[in-house]
Amino acid sequence: MIIRQIHVTPVAFRDPPLLNAAGVHEPWALRTIVEVVTDEGLSGLGETYGDLGHLSKVRECAAALVGVDVHATHEMYARISAIIGDVVTDMHGLTGVATQEKSIDRVFAAFEVACLDIRGKAYGVPVVDLLGGRVRDAVPYSAYLFYKWAGHPGGEPDRFGAALDAAGIVEQASMLIKEYGFASIKLKGGVFAPSEEVEAIIALREAFPGLPLRLDPNAAWTVETSIQVGQALEGSLQYLEDPTPGIPGMAEVAAEVPMPLATNMCVVTPEHLPPAIAAGAIGVLLLDHHYWGGLVRSSHIAALCDTFGLELSMHSNSHLGISLAAMTHLAAAMPNLTHACDTHTPWQNGQDVVAPGALRFIDGAVPVPDGPGLGVELDRDALAVMHEQYLACGLTARDDTTYMQRFEPAFSARRPRW
Amino acid sequence: MIIRQIHVTPVAFRDPPLLNAAGVHEPWALRTIVEVVTDEGLSGLGETYGDLGHLSKVRECAAALVGVDVHATHEMYARISAIIGDVVTDMHGLTGVATQEKSIDRVFAAFEVACLDIRGKAYGVPVVDLLGGRVRDAVPYSAYLFYKWAGHPGGEPDRFGAALDAAGIVEQASMLIKEYGFASIKLKGGVFAPSEEVEAIIALREAFPGLPLRLDPNAAWTVETSIQVGQALEGSLQYLEDPTPGIPGMAEVAAEVPMPLATNMCVVTPEHLPPAIAAGAIGVLLLDHHYWGGLVRSSHIAALCDTFGLELSMHSNSHLGISLAAMTHLAAAMPNLTHACDTHTPWQNGQDVVAPGALRFIDGAVPVPDGPGLGVELDRDALAVMHEQYLACGLTARDDTTYMQRFEPAFSARRPRW
Repeated sequence: MIIRQIHVTPVAFRDPPLLNAAGVHEPWALRTIVEVVTDEGLSGLGETYGDLGHLSKVRECAAALVGVDVHATHEMYARISAIIGDVVTDMHGLTGVATQEKSIDRVFAAFEVACLDIRGKAYGVPVVDLLGGRVRDAVPYSAYLFYKWAGHPGGEPDRFGAALDAAGIVEQASMLIKEYGFASIKLKGGVFAPSEEVEAIIALREAFPGLPLRLDPNAAWTVETSIQVGQALEGSLQYLEDPTPGIPGMAEVAAEVPMPLATNMCVVTPEHLPPAIAAGAIGVLLLDHHYWGGLVRSSHIAALCDTFGLELSMHSNSHLGISLAAMTHLAAAMPNLTHACDTHTPWQNGQDVVAPGALRFIDGAVPVPDGPGLGVELDRDALAVMHEQYLACGLTARDDTTYMQRFEPAFSARRPRW
Repeated sequence: MIIRQIHVTPVAFRDPPLLNAAGVHEPWALRTIVEVVTDEGLSGLGETYGDLGHLSKVRECAAALVGVDVHATHEMYARISAIIGDVVTDMHGLTGVATQEKSIDRVFAAFEVACLDIRGKAYGVPVVDLLGGRVRDAVPYSAYLFYKWAGHPGGEPDRFGAALDAAGIVEQASMLIKEYGFASIKLKGGVFAPSEEVEAIIALREAFPGLPLRLDPNAAWTVETSIQVGQALEGSLQYLEDPTPGIPGMAEVAAEVPMPLATNMCVVTPEHLPPAIAAGAIGVLLLDHHYWGGLVRSSHIAALCDTFGLELSMHSNSHLGISLAAMTHLAAAMPNLTHACDTHTPWQNGQDVVAPGALRFIDGAVPVPDGPGLGVELDRDALAVMHEQYLACGLTARDDTTYMQRFEPAFSARRPRW
């Protein structure tokens, strides 16, 4: 099964004004859809970031993979490594530092997922069966709460409404739980003073007793602030996510707070694992196949976490259904996934490049799609519309900070901020 | 593809009197052949240890795996884990301590390999393609030299002749290199005083300049002796393998000798990796899929070694062609395999349960077998003969020490000995 063609299509879909430590989500979220086609006419899907620097690398690597067998992932990785000579950085910095290894892993992942999709279709088995088989039939996801404005400035309010304090956050949680059945809650913090975010967590705990809670300020706090918040929230958090920047700072916090620290910022590529483990900096790794090199490499990392006693959960950026399917297959095959995964799916608000029906939430969990491969099909009309949106929207890279500064000129994304 | 039947067949084949720190190989080597058959009539092969304690666990687990899909390796692992409640120990101790995790991994591996063989056949691809695809077309193996007697006491001399000093070892190396084309040499030590084994390495270095050399005394030396030998062999060894028992002792040696230390004794299961890495005890891990839980789990461990800067080679016990095929597929798919693998193939002296033709050595390397799955077929006549030999030979477990004591009553396998 030789790769004959790879179609790379940037798309844009509407995104609500979600607030975070870097600023606020712009009106459009960007993604890149990868479709790999073999000499036998089978095709497979991958989804990755839409920033132009990354997109241009994806395009360059796509050309270099034509002629490779879909099984030859080591060969693909070597070819991509030879092309990615420099570090491809995100402006928002919300998934930690960029490194050359991470830049390679990010490009490789989209093709690897597409090749697994093809292999599953060729063999007549779901991707989860290429990862060791399912240990769960459905993957639990968490309600991913954001402070947010009612709508983008100058536009209509969106259906989610504003959430700018503890009451707004509880209201948002109620809506998402009612619609999706989530049984875990994550609050994106780093937006308001830590005391306000502590108040929101306490309000969530009171409103949803028994539901595991998490808080993620995206490294907006100093070590001292992180320790104060961690101690103030003893008994209220399943884990505290990236309170402060860097492995040494995280290690200092980890030693003083009662809950495990989770990360998708200080450990984002294999080379970060040895120093983080040696320092005792983290208790939970938030895997993300988009930058950990695809599904098989993520399963290697999951095994490593098991060996070193790290718990596992899963990180999410704004994404579409191809990624949700890939995340679900991977998570369904992870014996040591210890927490519900993150997803931005509710904020996607029904927009998708995959045909309806394959993906659904039942009691906060996504059943592993039936059918071979990823189990999702491209909706070519939707893809065309979203590609037109990409061309028309004028955005070429995610930049939460500059967008925020249009409305709050004094805003700074410096971290730590408090 | 549901497992309908699993045939478990213990076999015995003739083994020369190879000397090691535990004693001497008995006249028969024992193995267990596993054949998994699916509802669609596909069958796959696995090979594992033949000791009765292990064999009985393999039989018990085989019964528990009927009804499982061949993709569902996590489910198989869970079922086997539920059965292996205790630690299954080898008498010889040459592959390090037994643990519950290792006992599970050892049983699981044979079934996992057989299921990969089936999946490869079903998909029409070689097993190497289920492990990321080949990074090499042929896998280099080393000439595995042993001090040995001319023949078993009371029997005829074998064709390999005696090797009881440096000259005999050089002669043996010449024969194996002439027949197989090996380009690396490993000497099994721990048999004679360290000074004699140093002398043998020096003689090999002079006889085969440029060929990488290794020495493996199976933890027969104290820390002090290990350091002396390591320093005496500066510039002569690619690595020094398991000079002394245990992670703390290995770490002491590693800090004082000029070459990396390799192990298949102090790190033999995932739980040993964190302390060994923290202590800096080893530089090279000798993977062995037979006790690291099969091919996919071994690839997880290989990735972990890459992350932590450990080099990789591969360990071998006496084995037949199913294992050689499995080792070759795994090693062909390992980007970070940094050294030629060990194999006992020459000592098998042509005996096999696989049909001739699929496996061959060219310039010391085994080309990845063509054909789907492992690429080897069971020779059912040979299997029947070897099973008869198993029943007739009277051995039920490998016990190099007791056999040695029949001829040298004062022999002790205590380690460290020097």
